[in-house]
Amino acid sequence: MAFEAAVAYEPNKPLVIEDVQVAPPQAGEVRIKILYTALCHTDAYTWSGKDPEGLFPCILGHEAAGIIESVGEGVTEVKPGDHVIPCYQAECKECKFCKSGKTNLCGKVRAATGVGVMMNDRKSRFSINGTPIYHFMGTSTFSQYTVVHDVSVAKITPEAPLEKVCLLGCGVPTGLGAVWNTAKVEAGSIVAVFGLGTVGLAVAEGAKAAGASRIIGIDIDSKKYDIAKNFGITEFVNPKDHEKPIQQVLVDLTDGGVDYSFECIGNVSVMRAALECCHKGWGMSVIVGVAASGQEISTRPFQLVTGRVWKGTAFGGFKSRSQVPWLVEKYMKKEIKVDEYITHNLTFGEINKAFDLMHERGCLRCVLDVHA
Amino acid sequence: MAFEAAVAYEPNKPLVIEDVQVAPPQAGEVRIKILYTALCHTDAYTWSGKDPEGLFPCILGHEAAGIIESVGEGVTEVKPGDHVIPCYQAECKECKFCKSGKTNLCGKVRAATGVGVMMNDRKSRFSINGTPIYHFMGTSTFSQYTVVHDVSVAKITPEAPLEKVCLLGCGVPTGLGAVWNTAKVEAGSIVAVFGLGTVGLAVAEGAKAAGASRIIGIDIDSKKYDIAKNFGITEFVNPKDHEKPIQQVLVDLTDGGVDYSFECIGNVSVMRAALECCHKGWGMSVIVGVAASGQEISTRPFQLVTGRVWKGTAFGGFKSRSQVPWLVEKYMKKEIKVDEYITHNLTFGEINKAFDLMHERGCLRCVLDVHA
Repeated sequence: MAFEAAVAYEPNKPLVIEDVQVAPPQAGEVRIKILYTALCHTDAYTWSGKDPEGLFPCILGHEAAGIIESVGEGVTEVKPGDHVIPCYQAECKECKFCKSGKTNLCGKVRAATGVGVMMNDRKSRFSINGTPIYHFMGTSTFSQYTVVHDVSVAKITPEAPLEKVCLLGCGVPTGLGAVWNTAKVEAGSIVAVFGLGTVGLAVAEGAKAAGASRIIGIDIDSKKYDIAKNFGITEFVNPKDHEKPIQQVLVDLTDGGVDYSFECIGNVSVMRAALECCHKGWGMSVIVGVAASGQEISTRPFQLVTGRVWKGTAFGGFKSRSQVPWLVEKYMKKEIKVDEYITHNLTFGEINKAFDLMHERGCLRCVLDVHA
Repeated sequence: MAFEAAVAYEPNKPLVIEDVQVAPPQAGEVRIKILYTALCHTDAYTWSGKDPEGLFPCILGHEAAGIIESVGEGVTEVKPGDHVIPCYQAECKECKFCKSGKTNLCGKVRAATGVGVMMNDRKSRFSINGTPIYHFMGTSTFSQYTVVHDVSVAKITPEAPLEKVCLLGCGVPTGLGAVWNTAKVEAGSIVAVFGLGTVGLAVAEGAKAAGASRIIGIDIDSKKYDIAKNFGITEFVNPKDHEKPIQQVLVDLTDGGVDYSFECIGNVSVMRAALECCHKGWGMSVIVGVAASGQEISTRPFQLVTGRVWKGTAFGGFKSRSQVPWLVEKYMKKEIKVDEYITHNLTFGEINKAFDLMHERGCLRCVLDVHA
C-alpha cells in the first residue's frame, strides 16, 4: 500500500509529501488510517535537528486520531474499524513499569520506538522505493496510514469527533494529568503556570477543576492573558514587567510562595524559577516542558531541604490505553475542553505552513485533515 | 547566674570554656540545665567559618538533654524539674507551617534563632562581662545552662537516661524521619544510603524497620560496612572500587535503580548521584546532608520527567515537641537504637578533643558530660 506521508528528510528542511509504502502490520502491530493530526512542539524540536535522538529521514507526528485498517497476528484488543488514538506512551499492562502501579512509563516497546523501528523485526514499516523511512515516537502520524504497536493504541468511542479528540494524544492530557496525577493539587491551592501554550492552559484547566483558589499564569507575552482567562488563569505576571527575579515576584505575591508550580516551556532557567517560587515546607514544582538535550537544571539543595519537592511528568502520568478513552468520555460529557485549543485547521498539504504557525501569536493547536 | 560554657570566639579557633552569664528566661522562654550534649557535624560546619550565617562569638551545640531550671512568664507546657530535649526545630502549633499539616518547619522563632538572639527582645541571654555571646540554632547546648524558647523544648519522660537520649535532638531522628516521614519507604523497597555516619546509619535503621528488602550502603571507607551491618545495611559499595560512576554501578546492581535513596553527607555531587541511581518511573531521592553554602545541585530535567522525585528533609520531618517524646518512648521500649551510636564519652573540658574525634574513623557520636 502506498499513501501520502510528510517526510522529514533532513533537519530544518521543509517536509515533503511523498507516496510512501506502508507495510502490513506484523505480530502485535496495527495499521491505522490517520484522519486528523495536530502538531506539537516535540515534532518541531526533532525536526529542528536539536534532538540528538532524532533520526532522518523520518515521519514525524504524535497527536492524532484515526481508524484501525488492519491488525497483525495476535492482536486482540482492537479490530479493523475501531476508532483509536495512537499513543506515544505505550501501556502493555505486563511490564515492571505497568505493574508497579507507580508510573505510566511502560517500557515494553521503548527500545524500538526510541530508535525509529518496530519491535518485531527491528525494522521500519515505511519505505520509499525500498529505502526505509524511520518511525517517530512509535506513532508517525504525519501519514495517511501508519503502523504502531498494539500496546500503543487507545480504543475510543466511535461517537467522538476525531478532528477534535486527536488533541487527546498529547498536549491536553499532559497538562491535565500534571495537575491531577503528578501533583495531585488540592482544592484551595495556589498554583503557578509558567508558559501559556496548550500544555500550560491545560494545566490551568486542570487546576481549576481541582478547585485551586488562585491560578497565576506567567508568560512573556501579556496578550496571552485574555485567552488564558478562559482556561482558568486568575492572575497574570509578565516577568518582563519586573526587575526582581520572577520567583521573588511570585513569593511576594503569595505571602511566601505557591503551593504548586508547573513549568510548561522547556526552559531550564524557568524550571529553577518554578521550583524556587514554591512555598517553603510543602511547595511542589512539576517539570512538564521538555528541555533541549544536554541542558541541566540546578538550584541550591537548601530549597529541597526546606521542604520543596521537584518532580516531572510525561504524558501527565496518564496510562494511555486505560485512560485516554476516559478522557474522551470526559470531553463528550463536556467536562474537559478540547475544541478551545484548536485555533487553526489546515489540509495535509499545508503542513509546512502549520509548522510556521506554531511560532505565531494566537496559535495553540493546528489540526490537519490528513486526507484533504 | 554564671556557669561554664564552651565559647567559640572565632572560626576554627579552639573553643574556650568560660564563665558565662546566663540571664533569666523572659516571657516564652525557659532556662535549662544541660546535662549531656553530643556533637554534630553542623556544629563543626559553623565552627569552621564556612557557614555564612555563623555569628561569633557564640555558644554552639544542638543535640542535648537536660532539666528545666526556671521558666519565663506565660510558659505553661513545662515547669522546673521537667526533663527535656532542646529542639533546634521549634513547634509552636500555631503558625502557618505548623497548621498546614504538611511540614515540621515551624516559623515562629526562626527570625530570632537565625541571627543568634531571642525573640522577646532580640537580644542574647549569654554574656561575659557584659559582652553578649550569640545563641546558635536556638539551642546553644555547649553550656551548663542555656535559654531557649518554650516552643523549642520537648518534654520527655523522667525515666529516660539523659546521657543517651540527648542523641534524639538531631542526628538519629533526622535519619529515621527521612525514611518514615519524608520518603515513606514501603516494605520490599530497595534503598540506597550515601554516607554511613550517624545519620546514614539511622536511615538504614529506619529502612530496616520499614521492611526494605535491600539496604545498600555507599561510603568511601569500606571499614564502615562491619558496623553498618548492625544498623541494617545489607550490601556495601565503595565508589572507589569502581570505574563507572556510582549511579551507574547502583543501577546495574538493582536492575534499573533503587526505589529510594538518601544523601547523608552534604556533597552536591553525591546528591546528583543519589538522584540518578533511582529507578525510572518512581525512584525518590531525599537530600538529608547539609551542603556548604553557595553550592548547587544539578541534573538533567529528563531525570525528573521520567519519574524520579527529588526531595529534602530537615530533622527528618519530625514535629519536634510532639514527636521527640514519642521517639524517647520508642527508645525506652527498645524499638529504636540510641546507645549504639555513642562511640565516645568525654567530659565537658575535653570538648576540643571531641571535635577532633569527629574526623576519626570509628567515631559516630561523642557525648559530653557537661557538668563533669
